[in-house]
Amino acid sequence: MLTQAQSEHTSIQIPNTSEPRVVIIGGGFAGIQLAKKLYRKRMQVVMFDRHNYHTFQPLLYQVATAGLEPDSIAGPLRKLLEKGRGFYFRMAKVTGIHPEQNYISTEIGNLEYDYLVLATGSKTNYFGHEEKFTKAFPLKQVPQALDLRSHILQNFEKATITASPTERQRLLNMVIVGGGPTGVEVAGALGELKKHVLPKDYPDVDFSQMNITLIEGLPRLLNGMSTKSGQKSLAYLQKLGVEVKLSTMVNSFDGKTVQLGDDTTIISSTLIWAAGVRGNVIPGLKAEAVERSRVRVDRMNRVEGYENIFAIGDLAHMETEDYPKGHPMLAPVAIQQGRLLAANLERLKNGQEMKPFKYLDKGSMATIGRNKAVADLPGGLNLGGFMAWLTWMFVHLIYIIGFRNKIVVFSNWAWNYFTYDRGTRLIIRPFIPSEKPTNKE
Amino acid sequence: MLTQAQSEHTSIQIPNTSEPRVVIIGGGFAGIQLAKKLYRKRMQVVMFDRHNYHTFQPLLYQVATAGLEPDSIAGPLRKLLEKGRGFYFRMAKVTGIHPEQNYISTEIGNLEYDYLVLATGSKTNYFGHEEKFTKAFPLKQVPQALDLRSHILQNFEKATITASPTERQRLLNMVIVGGGPTGVEVAGALGELKKHVLPKDYPDVDFSQMNITLIEGLPRLLNGMSTKSGQKSLAYLQKLGVEVKLSTMVNSFDGKTVQLGDDTTIISSTLIWAAGVRGNVIPGLKAEAVERSRVRVDRMNRVEGYENIFAIGDLAHMETEDYPKGHPMLAPVAIQQGRLLAANLERLKNGQEMKPFKYLDKGSMATIGRNKAVADLPGGLNLGGFMAWLTWMFVHLIYIIGFRNKIVVFSNWAWNYFTYDRGTRLIIRPFIPSEKPTNKE
Repeated sequence: MLTQAQSEHTSIQIPNTSEPRVVIIGGGFAGIQLAKKLYRKRMQVVMFDRHNYHTFQPLLYQVATAGLEPDSIAGPLRKLLEKGRGFYFRMAKVTGIHPEQNYISTEIGNLEYDYLVLATGSKTNYFGHEEKFTKAFPLKQVPQALDLRSHILQNFEKATITASPTERQRLLNMVIVGGGPTGVEVAGALGELKKHVLPKDYPDVDFSQMNITLIEGLPRLLNGMSTKSGQKSLAYLQKLGVEVKLSTMVNSFDGKTVQLGDDTTIISSTLIWAAGVRGNVIPGLKAEAVERSRVRVDRMNRVEGYENIFAIGDLAHMETEDYPKGHPMLAPVAIQQGRLLAANLERLKNGQEMKPFKYLDKGSMATIGRNKAVADLPGGLNLGGFMAWLTWMFVHLIYIIGFRNKIVVFSNWAWNYFTYDRGTRLIIRPFIPSEKPTNKE
Repeated sequence: MLTQAQSEHTSIQIPNTSEPRVVIIGGGFAGIQLAKKLYRKRMQVVMFDRHNYHTFQPLLYQVATAGLEPDSIAGPLRKLLEKGRGFYFRMAKVTGIHPEQNYISTEIGNLEYDYLVLATGSKTNYFGHEEKFTKAFPLKQVPQALDLRSHILQNFEKATITASPTERQRLLNMVIVGGGPTGVEVAGALGELKKHVLPKDYPDVDFSQMNITLIEGLPRLLNGMSTKSGQKSLAYLQKLGVEVKLSTMVNSFDGKTVQLGDDTTIISSTLIWAAGVRGNVIPGLKAEAVERSRVRVDRMNRVEGYENIFAIGDLAHMETEDYPKGHPMLAPVAIQQGRLLAANLERLKNGQEMKPFKYLDKGSMATIGRNKAVADLPGGLNLGGFMAWLTWMFVHLIYIIGFRNKIVVFSNWAWNYFTYDRGTRLIIRPFIPSEKPTNKE
């Protein structure tokens, strides 16, 4: 972040106290939960993040589809954690871990730790083919969501202008890759925009020409959920006019044409990448601690081969009897691991034995458009339609960060719901001359 | 906006009807007022703007100082004007006027008009010294306000990190140039941030080191308002801890040091430019129609020397007995001129005589911080303090665009007021590697 050249060997100025120092890398669900639970445990907490805010990832797609403004789904980390005594935040990228000497290196200097917690979450996964998707739109961060929103709205402005029918079709075709919750929710939101919102804004665009295509490699949607939920979400999407292509791979995208695995193509200037994520690994750990871009941890979230380094949340790969392939990369797992680790660090400090993690599955959900959702509840219970949507909204309101945001989010939702309107269709792409330069994170 | 090369000679596709075509350039206060009043007057209305949204300029400083999000003070133009029959919006920059042949050229092609209305407003005025202020932060557009917000917050992040006392002082010093309403309001909002908001976020910054300096070339503040209001605003600002330098010029700013006219300097990485605006003139008019960057109009807002070209709002220079140097560049003037011109265009179309403009001065106001304002009301009445602040809030709520925005703005204000909190301290500078590239508009 600093523009002046900073030596890697500078020390970061944090007071040395008699309390053990816990360094947390990442202010996502896992990191903030851990930090909050450490408030009164007589430990010094230093958090690093590249952004100064926490992102409520499950609603990021709403920013991309002009349903919510960023402040509704993001909260400044300093504000969220300002009540913590002995809490320090540093906005900086961490560049390396040095386990032998117990310090980390960052772009603003080095810092020693007593306990290190990796909570860096996940990033977009192109499965080794980044170079074939440099023009795709990932959806993991607030600036990416804002950029996608501006791109979609600009496409409609361009569609009113262009004289070429091919170009118009390219602007109006939207392709989403990945039939998980994010892909399904983006497709549903675009379906709503097409049906209820955009035609009023763009009376000179023929919206029967707007095609929304959702592409999934597996033969079903929402693979992490029940078969019933997969089937229902497919039906809801089709009713919204979304074309769903199952068992279909995407080979490449050059900003103009999507190449599919079955050798067909779709002309489109918009490919939204929701096909997968992988762990955000920081260099410095032993090779055996890393399992396919995630970090191997034991039941206490301790990184394999280390005594005082932990990993929680999406980054942590923890195998148990119930989850032999590792736990799902979901917010509830991250929150529960953050909470347990706070208690375990206190136990460790007091010479007590740490307790093993057990995931309490509260179910999973996805929403499709304005008043439909699917939900798998514990005990095999399965909800669909409006009831699932109400549940979905209630749960997200409970979880979303900060009292103020709840009011804003709720009033935006209520407004969108009753008026079929969306509030925030501003094209804000400051200082970007033409196209977005990169899909790198 | 279009990336493909577009010929200047392409025609923009708008249906030709028997109704006269009114082309409006600019979606500010004047332009949207005119468009709305033309709804039922059997004229075709085509509006051009570089942005797809209207900006409520009087509250832009709240975005820059993390009080409001952009969607609270900006509304999509298509949404604002969607009820208009025969209304067309095109997001594009207009590059030239061709009065002899009655057409305009734009970056997306040419368009003929029956009546042309210039409502392009004003832009930042560096008084011929742009090159000495390339690192300054102007405050006329939403992206600029967002960029300033990110810059200010990044400065505090950097201040917690830097080991150099000089660098820390440079990051904590904020300089505002221009003692008009914008400069006074920005300075007041920064004073509030310093006093009530930022110290909680940045416990490791010594806020007694944060200096806010407001610089004005004249010997008083708020030169457009009464002497009393000028004096009161000075007292309110000083009470908030803002240093006000009157009768002082600013010579240059290199991003690190502000050079003042009295040969002293202030080290600062933040110079906010609120020192003046000038008209946004589009090339193609006769030289005698342009008066110091504004367009000369008669009492009917008709541009001097033309029959069917009009200018309204900030751009229009209209001299009357009451306003021998032209009307003030204020939203109420723009709104009243837009409204009158709609009626006059109908009169013109029907062969009736147009009516001359008479500005109804409803007073002017500026707010300073959390609960102080100054207001000059018609009849020489002058308000200060909390009463003026209530009046200020009430008037702005009435004028702000769109019902939904009113709820959002009001709930944000109420929240800020009762909690001393600000909601939206997110640093969002997508894809900007280091510093902002330019202050050009």
